[in-house]
Amino acid sequence: MKFGLFHSVQLPDPTREKLYYEEALDQVLWAEQLGYESVWFTEHHFSRHGIVSATFSVLSYLAAKTTSIRLGTAVTVLPFHNPIQIAEQTATVDLLSDGRLDLGVGRGYQWGEYNKLNIAMDEADRRFREALDVLIQGWTSTQAFDHSGEFWTFNDMTVHPKPLQAPHPPLWVAASSQSSMDRIAEHGWNLLIGQGESFGKVAEQVNYFASAVGELGQDFDPYRITVARAMYAGINEKQVRTDSEVPFMWFKQTGNEVGAPPEKRGELLPENFSEYRKRFSTTASLDYEDMCENVLLFGTPEQIIEKVNILYQSGVKKLILFVNYGGIESQKVKDSLELFAKEVMPQFPD
Amino acid sequence: MKFGLFHSVQLPDPTREKLYYEEALDQVLWAEQLGYESVWFTEHHFSRHGIVSATFSVLSYLAAKTTSIRLGTAVTVLPFHNPIQIAEQTATVDLLSDGRLDLGVGRGYQWGEYNKLNIAMDEADRRFREALDVLIQGWTSTQAFDHSGEFWTFNDMTVHPKPLQAPHPPLWVAASSQSSMDRIAEHGWNLLIGQGESFGKVAEQVNYFASAVGELGQDFDPYRITVARAMYAGINEKQVRTDSEVPFMWFKQTGNEVGAPPEKRGELLPENFSEYRKRFSTTASLDYEDMCENVLLFGTPEQIIEKVNILYQSGVKKLILFVNYGGIESQKVKDSLELFAKEVMPQFPD
Repeated sequence: MKFGLFHSVQLPDPTREKLYYEEALDQVLWAEQLGYESVWFTEHHFSRHGIVSATFSVLSYLAAKTTSIRLGTAVTVLPFHNPIQIAEQTATVDLLSDGRLDLGVGRGYQWGEYNKLNIAMDEADRRFREALDVLIQGWTSTQAFDHSGEFWTFNDMTVHPKPLQAPHPPLWVAASSQSSMDRIAEHGWNLLIGQGESFGKVAEQVNYFASAVGELGQDFDPYRITVARAMYAGINEKQVRTDSEVPFMWFKQTGNEVGAPPEKRGELLPENFSEYRKRFSTTASLDYEDMCENVLLFGTPEQIIEKVNILYQSGVKKLILFVNYGGIESQKVKDSLELFAKEVMPQFPD
Repeated sequence: MKFGLFHSVQLPDPTREKLYYEEALDQVLWAEQLGYESVWFTEHHFSRHGIVSATFSVLSYLAAKTTSIRLGTAVTVLPFHNPIQIAEQTATVDLLSDGRLDLGVGRGYQWGEYNKLNIAMDEADRRFREALDVLIQGWTSTQAFDHSGEFWTFNDMTVHPKPLQAPHPPLWVAASSQSSMDRIAEHGWNLLIGQGESFGKVAEQVNYFASAVGELGQDFDPYRITVARAMYAGINEKQVRTDSEVPFMWFKQTGNEVGAPPEKRGELLPENFSEYRKRFSTTASLDYEDMCENVLLFGTPEQIIEKVNILYQSGVKKLILFVNYGGIESQKVKDSLELFAKEVMPQFPD
């Protein structure tokens, strides 16, 4: 199996923005040393739930600081961007990193982001399709092209620079519906499976996507699927829970805050993280236990091996780990990454 | 005086995109070593005249590769961008570089870029003003804000990350008209003077801007003006001309190609640079001689000192050098930068 990071920076303490960035970047350098093969940044905007908004700037920085780790987004929310600018920015990262870019794309799901950008959410799918079409033309077209769509018009368009990888950087599409997976299979793109899906659901999706590829008369390459999963490895169960529960649930709950319109969401969390810790609720704790069972890779190396094995048996060969949540202490993240690299990775050599 | 680079990458040979980027970045590292204090990248799109289209990705890369040189754009063409995304990208560069960002902004002037992006050129000024207003709010606002303008609408907006420099990164505005300079003075912004202006015109503008600041009852800080200038230093006149004339005129002439609509521009240049060299015309040569006299810093160190002194006497204290034009051999650029640093810089210690 191949292992990478599914990376993000959040802002539980509003005064520590720069420190959180520094820690997250330091974790990437550490992961590269430990043999992780990729890092994929999420794009989020306008809230403490995710403060990496300029993902390609961050990846360019890492292009200079690293030598071999692949640099990805998971995902770039295409409806938010001018697709020609995405073609330019991705090609630049690809060129500066010697062809290490993986581009994950998606429609976005946060009501808050759509609202603040004043984009109607019911346009998401149409915007996504149009942007993806323009992006691929921008990357690959050797002739000037015109585009006249619902959202964008470009004339006599010619994009520079061109990406280094041919015909273009690997394209990963976040999807869970069967029709979306069919479309990904047909276009020869790759599939991203989100960190929120249960182990059972992941198995179903892998199975469906493999069949969809097979029905096209093609051999199925399992490395065309990447699965994201939150992870925390510790030496005993109690410590794992103490270290991970509150930070991870803060991450989950701030996601709910921005995910839905005001009338559909519950009470806002306290501004202050220590206050959140104090008020941490039984409901959150039960949710955590449930997710530990069905979704997360939290536990001792032995427990994690068992969970990764479920994924492996389902056909998953590429796993990216979400390790930096809710302001969890950076040294703990690095230790957890090291424990995983030393104890879990070697159990899945192929 | 302070000296920096006014930097750009062009594409005279379409097969050498990556190499041109590598050379330009290598020149920046060399310039930092030689004591140049800043580098400012131009933003250009869609033509061989300029292939750095994702300037903030390039600056982020350099944030990692350098330690002290300031990182700027000259300019970011605000009408082409979502101003909130510019707030995000600039803040990210500022944060990753430990507060080394200088943001130059302008309206853009290329008919080709506006046409390809399908933006009406007569909207340039209104788009520029609206974008600048949103950008500054995005950087500085501590409260969520709404914006409802001619081109952009944002609701309940809150930008992350915030820039490191307070209240925001230095803002440099490209301008030549008196009304624009008045506006820059009033807002406490800084003035960029382009590389195309004659020495006489630069003196007039510096003089006008200093008076405009004075009339506001403020002391005038000459470091609020940055002047761009093409430069080539060589050990004798003949060599200077041999090295610089054809590459520089290729740069100028490709600028004319994209600057105006098809019906207003002359014959297109050959696709192939060696063909251009062969067909190099008397007219271009006369233009070159004229510019050497009135605009450029091309010559032996002694000749350049004389020209820089004209600028210095006009009140210029910050000069950024355009040195990488028309695919000129990178080693020659580095030698020219070194000669300037050793022979010219020490003549202008304050």
